[in-house]
Parts: sequence; structure tokens; C-alpha cells
Amino acid sequence: MSEKKALQAVREQIDKVDKQLQDLLNERTALAHQVAEIKQQSGEQADFYRPEREAMILRQVMARNNGPLSDLEMARLFREIMSACLAAEKPLQVAYLGPEGSFTQAASLKHFGGSVQLHSMATIADVFHAVETGQACYGVVPVENSTEGMVNHTLDRFVSSSLKINGEVTIRIHHYLLSKSADLSQIKTVYAHPQALAQCRHWLTENLPNSVQIPVNSNSEAAKLVAENGLDCAAIAGNRAAEIYGLSVLANNIEDEVGNTTRFLVIGTQLVEPSGEDKTALLVSTKNKPGALQNLLKPLADKGISMSRIESRPSRKGIWEYVFFIDIEGHCQDPTVASALQELESESSVFRVLGSYPKAVL
Amino acid sequence: MSEKKALQAVREQIDKVDKQLQDLLNERTALAHQVAEIKQQSGEQADFYRPEREAMILRQVMARNNGPLSDLEMARLFREIMSACLAAEKPLQVAYLGPEGSFTQAASLKHFGGSVQLHSMATIADVFHAVETGQACYGVVPVENSTEGMVNHTLDRFVSSSLKINGEVTIRIHHYLLSKSADLSQIKTVYAHPQALAQCRHWLTENLPNSVQIPVNSNSEAAKLVAENGLDCAAIAGNRAAEIYGLSVLANNIEDEVGNTTRFLVIGTQLVEPSGEDKTALLVSTKNKPGALQNLLKPLADKGISMSRIESRPSRKGIWEYVFFIDIEGHCQDPTVASALQELESESSVFRVLGSYPKAVL
Repeated sequence: MSEKKALQAVREQIDKVDKQLQDLLNERTALAHQVAEIKQQSGEQADFYRPEREAMILRQVMARNNGPLSDLEMARLFREIMSACLAAEKPLQVAYLGPEGSFTQAASLKHFGGSVQLHSMATIADVFHAVETGQACYGVVPVENSTEGMVNHTLDRFVSSSLKINGEVTIRIHHYLLSKSADLSQIKTVYAHPQALAQCRHWLTENLPNSVQIPVNSNSEAAKLVAENGLDCAAIAGNRAAEIYGLSVLANNIEDEVGNTTRFLVIGTQLVEPSGEDKTALLVSTKNKPGALQNLLKPLADKGISMSRIESRPSRKGIWEYVFFIDIEGHCQDPTVASALQELESESSVFRVLGSYPKAVL
Repeated sequence: MSEKKALQAVREQIDKVDKQLQDLLNERTALAHQVAEIKQQSGEQADFYRPEREAMILRQVMARNNGPLSDLEMARLFREIMSACLAAEKPLQVAYLGPEGSFTQAASLKHFGGSVQLHSMATIADVFHAVETGQACYGVVPVENSTEGMVNHTLDRFVSSSLKINGEVTIRIHHYLLSKSADLSQIKTVYAHPQALAQCRHWLTENLPNSVQIPVNSNSEAAKLVAENGLDCAAIAGNRAAEIYGLSVLANNIEDEVGNTTRFLVIGTQLVEPSGEDKTALLVSTKNKPGALQNLLKPLADKGISMSRIESRPSRKGIWEYVFFIDIEGHCQDPTVASALQELESESSVFRVLGSYPKAVL
């Protein structure tokens, strides 16, 4: 068989598969419509979007996948399929910390798929407000960056808001070497956050062995410093800082390995049901007495519940001095977690479950 | 049947459909692998990515779609399916005009789907260079914005490059009202490109009836002016300008209707085969004699070939004063187009087909 005929034959098979795929995609959309109708008939306030069910489907898809398509690509396609089916019912309105093109927008698309309706907001407070007033069903805000630390505006906003955490998303962010100069050999000083310097150590040793490295508070500050100074200094930062401060990109993706990720939270009004692999976020404050924090955390340790993060923030209200944001493994409806939380609550002056939500799948 | 049981039954059907979808997606990936193998065995320099075949598949999908999923959503899903199948073979390397988060990145994802490997470049020249040296198979650059006009850097680069145009992408861009003030009632003057002012006329009449509108060269210039001036002026611009110039967003999506789109070109080394609905881009220069341009265009008019755009640029070489970038309907292999181009070439001092490529489908 000639090459042309062989290609023709395979392409006809692909066309046949495509037709079947298309029929199934329409069938799935019709079934999703049935789910919505059943919910509406029952008078229930219809939550068409069920984060825990989506997480379970994605995990199932990855677990049973035999290739040749990779597990991650397969899950990504199902993410888009569910997004399209949901949008056929009622497009999800999602508010995110803008501007268009921000990493928070990328996180929103990664979490909800490409069929949502996104609304760019100017501040984190505006994202909370949009969800609180019902303009959007969900919001997406950054909460933690491996080189810039916690996003305190987001944590502080939870103190006064009754919104829940409905999910988490992580996004990998690359490091760039930025300067006013276009010539790497001119660079004598490199500014960056200490963690960024550490993440790029290998690259810096190879390419700028004689440079002086100066740690500063954030990578944005480093870019700003470089914009205000001479041609012999450079900053490690995201490449959007290049545009904001008018700097050139001297080198791309200079991080030694996967390290620089930003974590985002999905906020909403729902309490999410267990998905099997969940996290729970707590906001607590201790009674003002010695050893209060140790006592607070004891029930978690006793029951073998891992705590993935604890962050303290000064309280803005006068009653308690500090609030703690605690992330633990498990869902607040899991019996062990529930009983630990009950004990923890009795040791706290303030206690709120900010949400239980599925761990990021993609 | 109780609501819970009814939901359970439909969800089981969805799970069954999902399993079939997953099998078909893996089958399609395996078939795409066969296509690649046939091409490799034949010793042909294997172009795994075939823009004209992808465009034909997407058009077919939309034409035969009976819903309930919309034609556009269905095509979007097939765009992602083809992207994933291709990446399973060999991930496409695509260079684009950065930074990360730029509209050109969004255009690259829209055209190639989410499974490509994207490389952010600092300038349009860098994108061309990356494709010319083989670091990337394709490049994506902006070429035309309905409010900011042609992107001349891109056109000029074609004069000295032998790269071809392999495709086009369009992206809708929203208008925002930006200011140093957070109070709309303070605004007395609005700066913007005349076309942006025209596109937002209705909104401006409703919301700022007494303001003075001042046309400037570009929306970016408007944002810059506002950043340098007082609290009583505002600019119409994209919301990334808010970040770059430190302005607040006073209002979102203020355009009266769909109008503001940016067009991007996909550049590569391939000559793309006809897809049935194509465009051809020409670079020509006339002999220096009276009526030269009219003579040049006559063969197109005589043969009924529509010209969708003509743009003149001063030549950088001394030989001819102007070069013309002409977009026409049809593929250069179509018999009518081919014969018109032959005549056109005989009237030109310089004549190059920059590429024939499928019209944007999505």
C-alpha cells in the first residue's frame, strides 16, 4: 500500500472515532442536563457545580487510564469536557484577581476549564465582594507563593467574611533574569528574594560566577530596584515584571528545578462534600494563657492528623491578639477529624472551619 | 424514585459515557501515532502538525453538530483533543511574544490547544529568530489590532525573513475605563484612540455625559497621559495598562458591542496545503511608474478575487520605495488564484507569497 493510501486509511479511522466522540460528548451534555432537571424539580437550590464530584471523576480517570494518552493529558481533557457540559446548563460566573493575563486568571482556567465566564477584579477584596453579593458564584485569589510567602490580604479577608474555601489550585511560575542591560557579561549584582536566589543557585554559578547576590524582600522589589539603578545589575523575577518596570529579559526559566509554585484558593458559599482526598482550613484564636497554642494543636497530634501549614496573623479586632490559619489533611466530616476539631474548638476563643475541599488534582 | 436514586442513576450513565470517551480518546491517540509512523517510515520530514487538516476537522465537527453542546464548545473540545493527541507524539514547541499572560499567549493556546510547549520571547524579532533557527516549530505574533492598527514590527520582519504564514488567530479584547481616581463622578476628560472612543460611545453617553473626549494615538498613550495627569481624567485601555501605569479600573467591558479584536499570525517553515477556506498573504512592490499599483491589483479584480486588506510600508532597502502587504481570499494553489498571482507577479518588482493558510475557525 502506498504511503498516501495508508495515511488515508488511518485518517478515515480517525474520522470514525471523532464521530463517535462527538456523539458521546453530546450524550454526556444531555445527561448533565438531566441531573440539573432532577435537582431543580426537587426545589433544591441547585448547585450544578459539585467540586467533590469533579475531583472524584478526575482521579478515577487518571487511575483507570492505560494510555497511550498520559494520565495528566487525559485528566486535562476531562476537565474541559466537564467544563463544557456545565456551561451548556448554566455558565459559571467566576471572579478572579485581575488583570486579564494574571496568574490568577491562569489558575481559574486550570481549575474550572475554558468554558467558564471570568470576571477580572482589581483587588482581592473585590473578588470576595463579588462572591458575597452573588455577582459571581466563585472567586479565585492567590494565597501563597513559594518565593513571596503568604498573600496576607487573602488571609485577612477571611476573618471578616463568611465565605468558604471550595478548592485549591497550584500554578508553576518561572524565574527570569531581568535588567536594563541586554548584555549578560555586564551584570555585577543580582537582586532577588532569598528563596529565588536559592532556587536559581546552579544557574547563577554557571552563568554569573563573579556576581554579588543581594537578597531583598520580594522579587518585585528586586525588579523595581534594578529599574532605578544602573546597567550592571539584574533582578530575578517573573517576566511580567519586565513589562511593568521596562526591563529586558536576559535569560528565561533560570530556576534549577521545579520549585516556584503559587497556590490559589477557590472561594464560594458552598460547603463541599467529602471527595476522599481532602484538606480542611481552620481559623482559630487561642485563649490568652501560657501554652495555649501547644494545647490547641495537641488533639491533632493525638489523633495522627497531619497539619500541612500554620500561619499566624495579627488580629484586627481587639479581642484576641493573633489568629492562626491552620491547614490539615482530611475532611471536617471524617469522624477522626470531626472529633479532633471538637476538642480543638473547646481550647479556642475563636474557631471557624473555613472549608473542607478536594486536594488539587491537576 | 427518590431524587437521590434518580441522580444516582443518571450519574452511573455519565460514568459509563466517560469510560467510553476515555477509550475512544486513547484509540484516537494510538491512530495519531500510526499516522506519525507511516510518515516517518516514508522518510518524509515528518510534519506531525497539519494546519489544513486540523481546520478541516474543526469545520466538519461544527457542521455536523446537532447539540445539545454548542458548535463552538464542541469545536473547542476537539481543538484540545487534537492538541493532546499531537503532544503524545511529540510536543509542539511554540515561541510567542511574551511576557507570560500576554494576549499573544492566549492566542497561542487558542490556536494550538493547551498541550503545546510555549516559549515566551521578549520581542517580535526574537519570535522570528526562534523559528528560523529551529528552536521552535512555530511562532505566534500580533499583526493587527482594531483600535491600535497594524503591528508594523511584524510586517517589517517578513521583508527579510523567509518564514511562511501558517495560520491566523483572533482574540477579543475588552475595554476598561482607567484612572488615578476611584470615583467615576470626578471624571471630566477621557483619553483614548478614536476607534476606542467610537466603540464605547454608548457607555460614555450613559455614564459620563458631560465629559470631554480627547482622541490620542493609542490607548497605551492614553493610559500614560492619565498616569501623568490629575484625578479628573480617565483613559480607555486594556486592563493590563492599569497594572503597568498603576491606575484603578473604574469600569469593566465598556465597549458597546463586539468590536475590539486583535489578530495574530502563526509563522513557520511549512507551506500549508489547501483546507477549502483559505487566505493568502502577499508581499509585493511595484515598478516605479505611474499607475503601477492600479495595474498590480487589476488581475485580482478581473478574476473576482476579494482582497481583504492592503497595507503599505516604507521599504528599508533602497531599491523600492514601498512594499505592500496584501491579503486575498483563497489558496495560492487554487487555479484562479494561481493564474491571477502569475499576472500580478509580472507587474511587480518584488513578489512573494508569504503563505496560504486556513481562515481562523474558532
